[in-house]
Parts: sequence; C-alpha cells; structure tokens
Amino acid sequence: MHNPHDISSYAHLDLERTARRGYPEAIYCQGKSTEQITGIAAQLGTHPDTVTLFTRADPAHAEAIHTHLPDALHDPTARLLAWPPDPPTPTGGLVVIAAAGTSDLPIAREAWLTARFLGRRTELLVDIGVAGLHRLLGHLDTLRQAQAVIAVAGMDGALPSVIAGLIPAPVIAVPTSIGYGASFGGIAALLTMLNACAPGVAVVNIDNGYGAGHLAAQITCPPAGASS
Amino acid sequence: MHNPHDISSYAHLDLERTARRGYPEAIYCQGKSTEQITGIAAQLGTHPDTVTLFTRADPAHAEAIHTHLPDALHDPTARLLAWPPDPPTPTGGLVVIAAAGTSDLPIAREAWLTARFLGRRTELLVDIGVAGLHRLLGHLDTLRQAQAVIAVAGMDGALPSVIAGLIPAPVIAVPTSIGYGASFGGIAALLTMLNACAPGVAVVNIDNGYGAGHLAAQITCPPAGASS
Amino acid sequence: MHNPHDISSYAHLDLERTARRGYPEAIYCQGKSTEQITGIAAQLGTHPDTVTLFTRADPAHAEAIHTHLPDALHDPTARLLAWPPDPPTPTGGLVVIAAAGTSDLPIAREAWLTARFLGRRTELLVDIGVAGLHRLLGHLDTLRQAQAVIAVAGMDGALPSVIAGLIPAPVIAVPTSIGYGASFGGIAALLTMLNACAPGVAVVNIDNGYGAGHLAAQITCPPAGASS
Amino acid sequence: MHNPHDISSYAHLDLERTARRGYPEAIYCQGKSTEQITGIAAQLGTHPDTVTLFTRADPAHAEAIHTHLPDALHDPTARLLAWPPDPPTPTGGLVVIAAAGTSDLPIAREAWLTARFLGRRTELLVDIGVAGLHRLLGHLDTLRQAQAVIAVAGMDGALPSVIAGLIPAPVIAVPTSIGYGASFGGIAALLTMLNACAPGVAVVNIDNGYGAGHLAAQITCPPAGASS
Amino acid sequence: MHNPHDISSYAHLDLERTARRGYPEAIYCQGKSTEQITGIAAQLGTHPDTVTLFTRADPAHAEAIHTHLPDALHDPTARLLAWPPDPPTPTGGLVVIAAAGTSDLPIAREAWLTARFLGRRTELLVDIGVAGLHRLLGHLDTLRQAQAVIAVAGMDGALPSVIAGLIPAPVIAVPTSIGYGASFGGIAALLTMLNACAPGVAVVNIDNGYGAGHLAAQITCPPAGASS
Amino acid sequence: MHNPHDISSYAHLDLERTARRGYPEAIYCQGKSTEQITGIAAQLGTHPDTVTLFTRADPAHAEAIHTHLPDALHDPTARLLAWPPDPPTPTGGLVVIAAAGTSDLPIAREAWLTARFLGRRTELLVDIGVAGLHRLLGHLDTLRQAQAVIAVAGMDGALPSVIAGLIPAPVIAVPTSIGYGASFGGIAALLTMLNACAPGVAVVNIDNGYGAGHLAAQITCPPAGASS
Amino acid sequence: MHNPHDISSYAHLDLERTARRGYPEAIYCQGKSTEQITGIAAQLGTHPDTVTLFTRADPAHAEAIHTHLPDALHDPTARLLAWPPDPPTPTGGLVVIAAAGTSDLPIAREAWLTARFLGRRTELLVDIGVAGLHRLLGHLDTLRQAQAVIAVAGMDGALPSVIAGLIPAPVIAVPTSIGYGASFGGIAALLTMLNACAPGVAVVNIDNGYGAGHLAAQITCPPAGASS
Amino acid sequence: MHNPHDISSYAHLDLERTARRGYPEAIYCQGKSTEQITGIAAQLGTHPDTVTLFTRADPAHAEAIHTHLPDALHDPTARLLAWPPDPPTPTGGLVVIAAAGTSDLPIAREAWLTARFLGRRTELLVDIGVAGLHRLLGHLDTLRQAQAVIAVAGMDGALPSVIAGLIPAPVIAVPTSIGYGASFGGIAALLTMLNACAPGVAVVNIDNGYGAGHLAAQITCPPAGASS
Repeated sequence: MHNPHDISSYAHLDLERTARRGYPEAIYCQGKSTEQITGIAAQLGTHPDTVTLFTRADPAHAEAIHTHLPDALHDPTARLLAWPPDPPTPTGGLVVIAAAGTSDLPIAREAWLTARFLGRRTELLVDIGVAGLHRLLGHLDTLRQAQAVIAVAGMDGALPSVIAGLIPAPVIAVPTSIGYGASFGGIAALLTMLNACAPGVAVVNIDNGYGAGHLAAQITCPPAGASS
Repeated sequence: MHNPHDISSYAHLDLERTARRGYPEAIYCQGKSTEQITGIAAQLGTHPDTVTLFTRADPAHAEAIHTHLPDALHDPTARLLAWPPDPPTPTGGLVVIAAAGTSDLPIAREAWLTARFLGRRTELLVDIGVAGLHRLLGHLDTLRQAQAVIAVAGMDGALPSVIAGLIPAPVIAVPTSIGYGASFGGIAALLTMLNACAPGVAVVNIDNGYGAGHLAAQITCPPAGASS
Repeated sequence: MHNPHDISSYAHLDLERTARRGYPEAIYCQGKSTEQITGIAAQLGTHPDTVTLFTRADPAHAEAIHTHLPDALHDPTARLLAWPPDPPTPTGGLVVIAAAGTSDLPIAREAWLTARFLGRRTELLVDIGVAGLHRLLGHLDTLRQAQAVIAVAGMDGALPSVIAGLIPAPVIAVPTSIGYGASFGGIAALLTMLNACAPGVAVVNIDNGYGAGHLAAQITCPPAGASS
Repeated sequence: MHNPHDISSYAHLDLERTARRGYPEAIYCQGKSTEQITGIAAQLGTHPDTVTLFTRADPAHAEAIHTHLPDALHDPTARLLAWPPDPPTPTGGLVVIAAAGTSDLPIAREAWLTARFLGRRTELLVDIGVAGLHRLLGHLDTLRQAQAVIAVAGMDGALPSVIAGLIPAPVIAVPTSIGYGASFGGIAALLTMLNACAPGVAVVNIDNGYGAGHLAAQITCPPAGASS
Repeated sequence: MHNPHDISSYAHLDLERTARRGYPEAIYCQGKSTEQITGIAAQLGTHPDTVTLFTRADPAHAEAIHTHLPDALHDPTARLLAWPPDPPTPTGGLVVIAAAGTSDLPIAREAWLTARFLGRRTELLVDIGVAGLHRLLGHLDTLRQAQAVIAVAGMDGALPSVIAGLIPAPVIAVPTSIGYGASFGGIAALLTMLNACAPGVAVVNIDNGYGAGHLAAQITCPPAGASS
Repeated sequence: MHNPHDISSYAHLDLERTARRGYPEAIYCQGKSTEQITGIAAQLGTHPDTVTLFTRADPAHAEAIHTHLPDALHDPTARLLAWPPDPPTPTGGLVVIAAAGTSDLPIAREAWLTARFLGRRTELLVDIGVAGLHRLLGHLDTLRQAQAVIAVAGMDGALPSVIAGLIPAPVIAVPTSIGYGASFGGIAALLTMLNACAPGVAVVNIDNGYGAGHLAAQITCPPAGASS
Repeated sequence: MHNPHDISSYAHLDLERTARRGYPEAIYCQGKSTEQITGIAAQLGTHPDTVTLFTRADPAHAEAIHTHLPDALHDPTARLLAWPPDPPTPTGGLVVIAAAGTSDLPIAREAWLTARFLGRRTELLVDIGVAGLHRLLGHLDTLRQAQAVIAVAGMDGALPSVIAGLIPAPVIAVPTSIGYGASFGGIAALLTMLNACAPGVAVVNIDNGYGAGHLAAQITCPPAGASS
Repeated sequence: MHNPHDISSYAHLDLERTARRGYPEAIYCQGKSTEQITGIAAQLGTHPDTVTLFTRADPAHAEAIHTHLPDALHDPTARLLAWPPDPPTPTGGLVVIAAAGTSDLPIAREAWLTARFLGRRTELLVDIGVAGLHRLLGHLDTLRQAQAVIAVAGMDGALPSVIAGLIPAPVIAVPTSIGYGASFGGIAALLTMLNACAPGVAVVNIDNGYGAGHLAAQITCPPAGASS
C-alpha cells in the first residue's frame, strides 16, 4: 500500500522555508529509508537555487543522495552532505567552534559545516577541554573576536561555562554523548550546560551540531541591507 | 567563626565583569542570608556607575537591599530589583518576550526587565499559548520584527517550536515549572524545547528568566561603534 | 521440557474477546519465537470468522504467519499482518491519522491499518508537523470532519496540542521514539502530550500505533443498531 | 509596572473556544494570584451564556470568584467551581467514573463534575480497587452500559487495565498522586496505565480529573443533530 | 598476566553455602567468559553431592559447561543448566508460578526450575494476564492451594496485585522486561508491583526468575524435622 | 454534594478479607480526611471480632479514631493504631525485625507491630547497620532462629544483602527514605535491595513497614491445623 | 512501648570506632528526635577523651546537646557541633577547602570544621567559581600546596574539574543542592563531578560536607609514627 | 576536509601534564578512530621518557598502537595498554584492589594496572563480595595494611560500605555496570556507594577503573623527598 516512489505518501518538503525564515530546510536522514532519501534527493535536484544540507547520513544514505546529486559534498566524520557543494561567500559575524576533546569532533564538524554553508565565517578549535586549561587560554584572542561561540563537550560538559565567563559573545553549548557510566549518553553534560554558573549560555539538544550551527548563523546574521 | 559583616568571608564580587564581558554581574539572592545581601548591597552602593540586578529576591531580601539602595526598582512579580532604578537608553535590536500563559508571567517579566536593563528595546506579549493559535498568529508581525524572541512556557512547552517555525530570528526558550503531575517541575517543557522540530531554538534552564534576558541582550547587541 | 508444538504450554488465546469487548484479540509478536507464532497462526486459521491482527512482526514472524495463513495482508512498514486480508466495510465516524514527520510513518500506518481493519473510515495525512504550520492548517477541513484524530509525533511531540486546540473531536496522541539525545526514546514527546495545554488529548504508550487505532475505533463506534 | 486591574497585562480569555471546539475554556487557578482570578471572574460575569469551570481552586481563589459570581457552585473536595451553578440538561452517552480508593475521590469528583457540566449523564463509583475484586465485579453491569469509563487510581494504577479487559467502551485512565515511596507522586500509576495489557486505555496527566472529564464528554458527544 | 586456568585469579566458589544457608551457590554466567565458566564447571564436577544451577547461560556457556558436566540438564528457554540433572524429591509446600503472557515464559521457567531443583513441588500456569480476567479466575483453586505464588509479568505488571487480593499465601512478584516504550525495560512493571494495593507482595529484581524461585523455596521450606 | 457522614460515598470496607485471605483489611490514613477516618472508625467499632490496624495516622487521625475506639492502642513513632488493643496470642514462626539505624525506627516499629498484631512472635533489633559490622554479627544467633527477617535500612541499604548471606530464612527488605542527596528519598536503598548479591531477599516499597510485617506474618504462618 | 530514656531501644553508639578506624563516630542528627539526641549527648558526656561531631543539627538539636554538653562548639551555618570544643593540634598534610559560591558556604564550613576537628591544618577559600576564572587562578599557589583539596560547588559543578587539572593532589568533590530547575537538587553537579574530564576527582554525596572532611583527614593523615 | 594524518586537526596532547600534575596524560581510546590512535601513538613514540596508558582500547585500537609501539604491554581483560611496558619501581603506600565478583575483574584490573604503572605497590583480591562475608573477613589483615583500598562492585555495590567500616584508610569505590534489571547499568551500585553509611568512601564514575587507580596513586604518593 505504501509507495516509496510517490514522495507525497511520506514527505512534504518545506521549500518555502527560505522565504519564511531566511534559511533552507535540512533533511534529517536518520530513521528514513534509502528509498525515501532517494526520492527526496531527486526532488531537491530540481531546486539548485538553494543550499540543502543532509544531516545524520549514514553511508547508505550518502550513496542514495549521490545517485541524484553526484557532486554533493560529503563529510563522513560529520555524517553530513551539502548540495550544491560549494558554500556561499561568507557574510555576518565570526562563528568559532570549540571542541573539548577529539571524540567530540563529529559533532563539532557538523556545527562548523552548517554555519559555513548557511553563510558565515567560521573557525574550528579542537581538544581544548578544561582538564588542561592552558590550551583554552591560548585561544582567548580568537574566542573574544567571535560574535558567537559554539562549545562542544561531552563528559563533564564544563567547557561552555568557562568560555562564557571570559568573553562578551553568546555561547551555544552542545552536549555530546561522549563518555560512559554516569554520563548517561550526554545527560550529564546537558545538565552542566543548563546550569552554567556564567550567564550567556544557550543550550541545544545532545549531539545537535546542526542546530548549533543554524543558531549561530542566525545570531551572527548581518543586518538587513548590510554587506560583509 | 563566620562573620557576616566581613564580606570577604562569604563573597568576592566580580566587579570587573563589565570590562571583561560587557555586562555587569547580577546577584542571585536565593540561598543567601539577608545579612549577606545587606553586605553586598552596601558594597555595590559605592559603585553607582554600573547597573546591578538582584534576582530571585524574596521580600526579606528586597528589604535588605532597600536599606542601602533605597531607590532601587523592585518588581515583586519578577522577584527582581535593579539599581540604579532607571534603565539605560535602549540600543541594538528588538527583543520580544512571549509568555504562553498567565502563570508564566513572573519568569517572563524577569526576562523582560533583564533585557531592558541591559540596554535593549523590548516588547512583552502574554497568554499567547498554542491552545488558541489565533492569539499567537495575531502577533506575527511583532514577532517577525524581533532580532531575538524569548518564548516562555510551562506544561507542554510547545510555544518555542511553533514560533521558531514562523520567523527568521533565534528563539530563546525558557521552560517554566508551571504545571503538575507529569510536568515534573518543568522537565516536560524543557525536553520539548530541547527537541524542538524547528531549528533556531536556544534553551536555558527551567525558570531562568534572567539568563534568557541576558542572552537576548547579547544576541541583539549593536555592532561595536554603532548607535541605535 | 518446553514443547512449542503444544500451544497450551505457552499461550491461551482469548477467542471470546469479540463477544466480551466487541473487538478481537491481536497477537503481539515481539518477544515470541517463530515457533510460537507458527502455532498461534495455525490455531487462528481455524477461526476465519474474525479479524486477527499480528503486530510488531519482523520478517521471520511474517514468514511464519504466511505458512498457515498464506493470504494474510502484510505491511512491512507498519510491521503488521491482517487476516483475513480484506478489511470490513467501514461503519461509524471518520478517523484521521496525522503524522508529524516522515520517520513517524511506521507507527502512523500501524494506527491507520488497525482502525481500518476494526471497521472504520480512515484518512492518513503525513509530514504535517508544527515546524511548518501552513502544512497543518492546509488540512484543517479534514481534521474538523473527524470524529477522532490520531496525532503521531516524535521529537517535541507538539502536534497533538496544536490540533486539539483547533477541533471539537478528541485527539489520540501517539508519541514515537523518533529523535535523539534528550528525546530519550520518546519520553520527551510522551511528556509533552501528557501536559498538552489544550484539553481533549488522550495519550497512549510510545510507538503504540495499534493501541491508538483500537481506541479510535472504539470512540467512533456506531451506536448500537445504527448503520453507517 | 504590572497592573492586576488591567486584565490584558496578564490574560487573554479564549472566549471563542465554544464556537471553535464546542466546549468553553476553563480557568486553571493554580499559580494565579487572587487578584488575577478576581479580574477574570469579573470579565466572565459578563458572559452568562456559557458554562465556565474554575479548576484547582484553593479557598482563597474560591472567595475571589464568589466576589463577582456569588452563586457559583463550589465543590471543595474537587477544588472546582462552576458558573452558572446548574449543569445543563444531559445529552449523549453515559460516562461512568470509577475511583479505586477513598483517597482518589478529589480527582474522581473533578472528573465527574466536569463531564456533568459539559452536558453528560454520569455515574460515580468509589473504592472499587482491584485488591478486592468482588467490589469491581459487582458493578460490571453499570460499567458495561457506559459509552466511556473514567478510571481513577493511584498506587499500582491497575484498575484501568482490569476494567478495559471487561467492557467494549474506551477507558480514560487517570493516575493520581496517591501513594508513597516508589509511587513517585503518581509516576508508577501513570506507567502502569500507559502499559495497560488491554487495548482501549487512554491516559491523561497525573491528577488531571478535568482533562478526563473533558475527554469523556467529547467521546460521548451526541451526533450532530441528535437529541438525547 | 591474567591466567584463566588458575581459578583463584578470578573466582572463589562459596562451597560452604549449603551448610550456612541451606541452599547451594548458583553460578551467574552473564559477564563471565567461557574460559571462566569452563574452569568453574571443572571444579564443581568434583562436588557431585550438591545441586548446582548455572543461570543466564548463553549457548556458548552451555557448551562450556557440558564439556565437564556432559549430563547437565539444559533448558534453553530459561537459559538455565542444572547438575546433577535430576531434581531432588520434593518436600515442603506447593509453589505455583503464574506467567501473565507468552513472552514472560523464559523468566517463569527460570523461576519454576529453580524452585523445583531446590526441592519443591511446583505448578506452572501460563498466559493468564488480567486483560482476560476469566483465564486467571479459572485457576483460582490452584492458586489458593499454593504456599507461595510467583507471579511473572511485564508491561503493566498488574498480575501480582490481583492475585494477592484473592489468596492467603504470599505472592513473589517478578517484573519482566517485556514491553516497549514507557515500560522502560521493566521499570513500569517493577513500580506497579512495589505499589501493589494488596499487601502480601514481595518484589524481586526485573527478570530475576532465579531469585524468585529461591525465595519461594525458602518460604515453603518444610519445618526442621518434617517430611513432605 | 459530597456527604462525609455517608460512608458509602467514599469507602467500601473489605470486611470479608479475613475470610478470603486470612488477614483483615488495614486502613491507610494518609490522604483521608479526619471526617472520613471518623466514619470508618465508627463502622469498624461494630466489628470487634477482628483486629484492625490504622497505618500512617497523624495525630489528628489518631484523635478521630479514639473518638469511636477510645481504647485503641496508639504508637506515635510508628504512626499506627490497633484495635482491639491487645495483640493475639502468637502462633507460627519467629519474625526478627532488624533496623540499620536509629532514624529507621518508625518504619521498623510499624513492621514489628504489624507482625505482632497479625499473630506472630517477634523480636526487634535496632542500630545494627553494616558500618559497625560487629553489632550485626553479635546478633547472629537470633537472626538464625528467625523463620523470616525484616531488614529495615535507608542510605546505602546494604543490611539485607549482608544478613541474607548469613542465614537460611528469607529476608524482607524495607528501604527507608532516611538519607539525603543521592539517597533520593529511599531510591538508593530500594535499588540496592533489588540488586542484592545474595538470593533470598524480598523487597517491599520504600517506608512500607506495614507491608513487610504483613508479608512476614504470611511467610511464618503456622500450617493449617498446627498450634504454636 | 518505645522509651526514649532507654538509649538501647534506639541507638548503639560505636564507641570503639576510634580503635578500629582511627576516627570517632559522628552523630547524624537529622531524623532523630530531640529526646534521642539528648540521650546520646548524655552518654557521650561520659567519654570526654574523644572528639565527637554532631552533624545536620537544627537549633532544637543544638539546644538538646547543650543541655548535657554546655560548652560544645556550635557553628549554625554548618549546622555542626563539636565536643570537646577545642580542635586538636593539627598534624598531617594541608587540606584546602574551596567553595564555588556564597551559597555553598554551609557545606564548605561543615567540611572545613570536620577536617579541622579530625586533626588537620586547613584553609578555606570562598566564592572562587569558574564564572570568573581569575578568582580561582589567584589562589593557585595555595591550591598547589594542599595534600588534598575539597571543592564544593552547586549548579554546574565545574570547579573540581578545573582545579584537578591544575594540581598534583587529589580533589574531593562535593556537589551541593544549590541551584534551581535542572540542577535537580544537586544531581547536575553530582554528574558533572563523576564525569570530570581530569582524573584525580573523588566524589561524595550531595551536600556531604562531613564525609568530604573525613575523607580529607584520612588522605592527609601523617604516616604512622610521624609528627607534624 | 578532515585529515587524520595531521594530528593537530583532532588532538592536542597535554605533554606537560607530568610537570604540572605529577602524572602523565592517558589516552582514552573509546570514540577515537584507529587512524587517530595511530597518529597519537606515533607522536608519543617520540617521548619514551614518560609512562603512557591507553585505556578502553578494543583489539583494533591495540593493533594500531602496536604498529608504532610494538613492545607496549597489552592486558585485554582490562582493555589497557602501557608503554614503556615495564612499570616503574614502586614507591609510596600500598594500594589494595578488592573486586566483589568475577565479572568485576576487567575494571579491577584496569584500576590495578593504573596504580601499578603510576608507581605504587599493589595487591589484587577477587570475588570477595558481601554475599559470603567470610571471604572478605579472611583478607582483613591485608586490607588494614593498605594506605588506600579500591573496592570494585556491581549489583548492590555494598562492598565499599562494609570495608570502610573496618579499616582506617580511605576507600575508593568503583561501581561497575555488572548486573541486570534495576541495576540500571551501574546506577544502583553508584547510589549505594554515594550513600555509604560509613564515612571514608570516595566514589568515581561507573566502570572508571583508570580514575580509581589514578586517585589511589595520588593518595598514596610518597611525601616530597621521601623514598619508598
């Protein structure tokens, strides 16, 4: 009864989102079949005028997307594809992405690529967690130039609190599911960030690099009529 | 052994925060004795050059503050005091605060006064929850003019998802502890907001109106060198 | 000691349920061995006078069922089999099933097929989540004609709240396990629905499409003696 | 700054709800100040054409309501007020409310009065929990006549499962916060009900008697054009 | 450094447990390597004077045990092995094991075999959950003859409450992890049982059939000096 | 509408429970009004042939009970009343109640009095927690004579594990809400007991001294026809 | 039946603890009646040769203690009493207690006094949370001289992670219940500390200042035979 | 875009940790790709002057490490590698590691090897859980000689409470994820340990053998200038 070739039986793409919100829809691949992703990619291939991001794409999803959008950029670490493959010329304020540890890299890269493809200048800093505070303090100049910082951390999730206490810009905190035992798949880091003792911390869902990048792009959006 | 008259035995005010971060320290009154609040107010009274907010102040705290800062503004609904009592001339983008229900008013007002005293233009909309969608849609023009929206909601916490899907600006979502049973003191609303199906939602702690107002002020900050 | 060919050693079918409750028993396949399902299908094959649904059937279960009931209808997306394969002529009120996103389709289809095989008129709407409110509002006429609406949503689970505020009929809310991080396998959506700010929302277990369809069939049951 | 005499500063009554949904708005008193409730009662006093329920009203709320609506019916056990004080002539199907224990009475009465004031025939059965099954089975005839049953239970919350297995009508399950220790304020009963082994159980929030009564009134609504 | 052939480097068997407690030690296989289980079986093979149960044994564990104890009884459904393979002549009171559904069978059989091998008379009843109360009531005579009843149930876990209300003997309640969504791997059933509205319910851990059988054997133990 | 003088409007006493189960109903006072308790005590006063326990009685409940049953025994520490005030001549096996700490005394006494009034020989041991193991080991002879031990403990809840490892009789474990922080009102102790590494531990709800005493009385019940 | 004047009916003091463990027993007052505390103080008054701490003492407990031990030291902020009132001459390594905020002072003082009365050199630093990192870094010399640091923090609980990354000594982390919303009474801080990204963090229960002080005294204990 | 051969794109080794803290950095392998581990091992191979531990290494990680550090010691049970492969000459106090059960061995060995490679004398005791108390008491002499004890336990987690009550040295409690059902992956044991009724218990994260060994090495560190 369920026909995967009839996209209307499983999806209604929100193609007017750019007009309404200023940013295009992204396709969340997890939980969708490769048949569904194939159908969606085929339909999007007829709209080359807008950036589309495919998030949480596993290798089978990526293959399905490349069938219809063969030149789509694919970052396997971030599980993200972007099409058209070249990011727009950046405008607006600087977004700095700071990852606490090596294991947080997939989420940090998802955030970084999202902000970049939504049109911002970006810088990515890795492995600057608070266990070795000198690594963080060594990047203080870069952090203070940002108009928004995305701080990505699992385990104790302490990085956003410390950064927020040092800079004027808002900090978008992304808890990751990195850790074990009482990290509870990122709950510990999530709670740490919601209870940050320094104000100026905006929290997104566990492992939500896409949402963090989107939020950063909105916050650092150039004023209407401005050019970069 | 513990001397409440010696402020150094219980508090170190972070008076250089404005220089470092661009916004002054606020005094979180809950859990502090009236003696401690009195000592802090006395010390702050010697620094009239900066705005100070006292948050989560009960009537006894307010009385203690008024002893040394008799003209401090007091909003009992928001449990907030501000000194000096007049907010600065607003600069930067518009902050709209939207409260889902009447019971969310204390937190909405805390967010509103914080953003206003940190220097922003603000507008407060009340009782526009999603159970009567026409009330929300009737304010769509105002919401679309905002550079940041603070959406305050308890119970199902659905308001930020709906607003975020309609506007370009980031939405700061504040879950409140309003509700009963399976609202679990705001956990239900918090989870709703962390899982918002629309991107562009930044979550703060349950009942954290102050944090939301602070974040909104940072996001809508005028560019360095700009005037409103 | 345990003999899979002796059905009485592992199952007592409730064949009088239709007499007692008006609806037949369904077989919940998950956690049952293929040997057990085979034995049950064999016994049911001797009762062609009543509709039987097999829910949560994986491919091995389906194969076991088809051994004895080769013409049973199988919807792999819904993981459901029905026998006899043709649904009854519909009676009673209209049941509308609304799915928030593409990933919610398996559960929505399980609800849809259950209501249909228990004898109701049904309509299935997909991908009408609140992130793009225009998609939902475009179906308002259909929703207002329903005598019961089944709203299926994961992530923030906000769809039932919004629908319930717009229509007179009861809304059966089905949280799904779609999401990640702080969706906690559907807990976030479940809590949202239990705390719906609009009255008229009846909640069932996470991913319980069968229960929702059953409940909808009961609610929209024609009065005794009536014809559709 | 906050004026309790200006109702628009804290509440927007949804007076068109009856036209849109068929049932009037109810006023949830918990968390509202007596000043706010007074203002709302004053405004509602000018709309005697519709039934208004005030739920979760403590004695101070009741007094505030009686100032402007002196003849409002007040049931202190249910913490509910109704105005005008006489329920409408009943139409539609029978609603049976079953309370497991004496301590569940406040919630059972809230459900009962809600269904009655929204226009239904009702019957209330008390202290028929499953620990003494004969008490429940003695009411089986009444339960089987209902078009909807509201089952109210705390502690183990087993009552709805058992009733649903015995009757054709849907069962609205209301977990209560009655219990101690691992009842966790009603969570145990809530989970029991969400996992009811018998289909046909619709769950509402813990202690949500109002919601259960509203839902029952919707389910048992007479067909358009019918008379009782 | 770690030598699996030297049993003292990983296990100290509690061989005096029968003298101290009256019941022998059982070997919990889960989490132990096949090398470790092999070593333990070898050592136990030199103590044929006592019953040994191996619980939670997967097929590889079973194979390892059969290497040294080739005639050990193996019940794959219960994941249990017993050696020597013949249960003792029963003494003491009757233990009735009641399983709510087919899927609860593995745990029910684990409890049944444990009680039987620890020396009791037993009877096993399956698929008598409360959704079809007549199935349970049909076994009332058997249940009332028991000196201890083990009630095994997942999902709503309501079976022990209902049985306990009908009989004089204590009921040992075993929650199982059968269910989905808000059953949370057996937490829902566990809480139901801890909150049973009928007194006389003793709860053990989720899926702990072994513990239930052991406890039943202790409760129905013949008085010192008695014969069955 | 609700008449506290008409007991049938709020309670149906289960007076045939002794015939059905062998033990009388107890009245759980918490959550019942003094008017309701007064009505129940009045009705029970006409049934002096059976023991009645009133549990979780606060001073107002006790006063209400004494109005109609002036000679009822009242143990304020245990919050328990018994009527008639003299316990029956003991029969059956010995029940030993062991309390880990002084703060567990209220629950231990509730268990002790329940077992005693349901007809058993009892012994109460206090402050024998595992932090000073010599205190526990000093009572080993008494513990080994019991036919059932009730072990009452809050905080780490380790007492039942240790006792169960030392004796042949079953141990009824009662977690108490004594503790702070991560004891979570008794959850820590509850989980410890459910996971006891020694078999033979039967768990009841947090602070459920009554249930433990009832269960112990059932377990140590003399065989039908026996005399003590 | 319960005689508060007979101490053996409710408490067995562990007077040999000093011999066995090297540190005396402390009396946890919470949950004990003033009668019980009076009895315990009376008995301890006959053992002036050892230090006794009374923890979690409210004013009524303090008054009861002073009846028999009138010169006992009382620190109301820490809710602690010590007798005899003068701490011993310090030996062993330095214990530094660091409190993140003013509101953490009660727990920090409890830890400080415990370590001091168990015989250590101590230093107390307050309000050095990570929101203003310069305050912490300004005390780095002191922190690096410690043989054990006790870090006390609520809200995000990030202080121990940051300190542990900077010094060689072990850090005892004490989460406090300070905070609101998603701090969940200290759970957030507890989880942060358990997941500290820097090794060398030992966690105790929420608000357990006494335990932290005791542990610090053990860790910094002088070697047998040494003098300070 | 992400180059695994450029270590600076994913990791910043904290090589100065030994100077700052006295102990070298360890590499947590879980969540890192074999390419990343290969790169890290290559860089560390140029620093043979310090001990490096690789924790949570699966076989693929181990193979990657051996590519560049072929003589690294590998303990598969503990999932740990050490390089250089010979532990340093021990100094400082004795560390005793006590494992409750056979299944706790991997974590106990991780703790043991960590303490040993960080320079301490160690002794490992296995399968001495409290279910057979004589096994623990038989090792009392060894336990009383320790300057720090690491107690490793899953399930009820009662071992640290019992040990701490018997000895003067601090006990580092390591909850393990061994267990099932309500052990919740180690939460039960974690809570038991946080609520230990005996003071002197320091808790680390679930399964954190490395952290326990590190902490023990710090606690038993010889005084500056001392020799073992």
